[in-house]
Amino acid sequence: MSTTAKTPGTGDSGNSDFARAGAHGQSRSVPRSESEDPAPKRRAGRPRTSVLSRRLILETGLRLIDEVGAHGVGMRAIAKELGVRPSALYNHVAGQDELVAGVRELISDRIPVDMFVREPWDVALAEWAVGYRRTFAAHPPTIALLAVLPLSEDSVTSQMYDTVISALMRGGWPADRALTLMVALESFILGSALDLAAVDDMMDPGPRRDVPAFSEAYRSRAEHLAARGEGPAEASFQLGLRALFTGFRAEYAALGLAPTSAGAHEAPPAHR
Amino acid sequence: MSTTAKTPGTGDSGNSDFARAGAHGQSRSVPRSESEDPAPKRRAGRPRTSVLSRRLILETGLRLIDEVGAHGVGMRAIAKELGVRPSALYNHVAGQDELVAGVRELISDRIPVDMFVREPWDVALAEWAVGYRRTFAAHPPTIALLAVLPLSEDSVTSQMYDTVISALMRGGWPADRALTLMVALESFILGSALDLAAVDDMMDPGPRRDVPAFSEAYRSRAEHLAARGEGPAEASFQLGLRALFTGFRAEYAALGLAPTSAGAHEAPPAHR
Repeated sequence: MSTTAKTPGTGDSGNSDFARAGAHGQSRSVPRSESEDPAPKRRAGRPRTSVLSRRLILETGLRLIDEVGAHGVGMRAIAKELGVRPSALYNHVAGQDELVAGVRELISDRIPVDMFVREPWDVALAEWAVGYRRTFAAHPPTIALLAVLPLSEDSVTSQMYDTVISALMRGGWPADRALTLMVALESFILGSALDLAAVDDMMDPGPRRDVPAFSEAYRSRAEHLAARGEGPAEASFQLGLRALFTGFRAEYAALGLAPTSAGAHEAPPAHR
Repeated sequence: MSTTAKTPGTGDSGNSDFARAGAHGQSRSVPRSESEDPAPKRRAGRPRTSVLSRRLILETGLRLIDEVGAHGVGMRAIAKELGVRPSALYNHVAGQDELVAGVRELISDRIPVDMFVREPWDVALAEWAVGYRRTFAAHPPTIALLAVLPLSEDSVTSQMYDTVISALMRGGWPADRALTLMVALESFILGSALDLAAVDDMMDPGPRRDVPAFSEAYRSRAEHLAARGEGPAEASFQLGLRALFTGFRAEYAALGLAPTSAGAHEAPPAHR
């Protein structure tokens, strides 16, 4: 295989795919686009055979999804991008379902959860929401894809959820309510991530006379935001987050909830 | 063109496309799948030439998006589905951008807004959120597509926004804050619509021992919801909506806001 070949081989044996990946020239390595995520960068001199890993396959899948959208990014496209046969990928990723699940794991794994071991439930939960939104907004095409994806049985996303729900339960929330609340917050986070991924003037009604209140609001918002140096998506996220937590705390107070004897600040078993 | 032909003609003139559409047999009409939206149904005996309208093109586009996803649904696919040449569509819809914008209009137009003329701002806004979520959840692939789409200059979506913002301003909200609040609520609505489109057991952690709090919460929620006959997405939407509006009312109270003299409802809205 030449160093410029990006198409997979046509043979039916996958045995030599590691060697094929290793045959790439040092200066070329894995073919990449200019807009790539820098995460999978390799050190010079590291054995080429380590190029083809589950991690690299998932990182490549995520990069392709970011570049061309969620549709059509499958094992074949990733193999082509990596310059190996599709069959070689199956040593690391069982198929399309595991690929999509794995991409979700990659993203979930970047959402900070360490605040849950040191902050009260509401402070930690709000910080989690901020990090969660920021992480997903960096990969807009994944939002709708992953928002409806069932959890696999070894998902690290489940570990993140466990950390969140543990913290809510230590705070005094009943288990069932903790889950319902987390999902409600997650809906706001994912909707806000979509909003953050849109252009800032998405809500511009344009020059028209039949929507005077909307037009006035759009102009007025632009002035207020310019004065504060804040983006429109950020302003709405902050207003919504504040409102949600006012409501969560009111519900907490109304239910007469209190932290369990384990205490909100005792070191819980964090997963990461 | 035979009544079974679904591929567009290969000639370069679009002049006869109306006649071609009209050549479909009475019993066949426009090709449809079983999962179609019933909206574009036609009366028997109505002239065939009226089949090809902007409305039908958009309805067909929406149906195809629902069936195969947002990607790859363009003028060509719609022409094929309708059994006409792509060129015939351009008499009604200028191109892909107008197509997607038009599909958004179709959906937006189904969101009820009549409550804004008779209810206080918070009651009307909560009812709007319920209808908005239900309308978009019926077309899951459109959610992420339309959430980031700029408004066209003749958009009926802008008219919906004008109705909402007018009501908030009559309620006493400053124009800029009204828009920021509406977008925050919209983020929650669209995230909740995605959640409603997912399978009910999406959050099932499966049989594993390392996420005990999450597993307990999932089991406990299933019991509580079964007792109430409520779905998990509905429970989270209701909890989040209640929390958001508790927060919106608290912000309203803290700002010392009151309905303007133009407002139909002088009394501050009561908690529901």
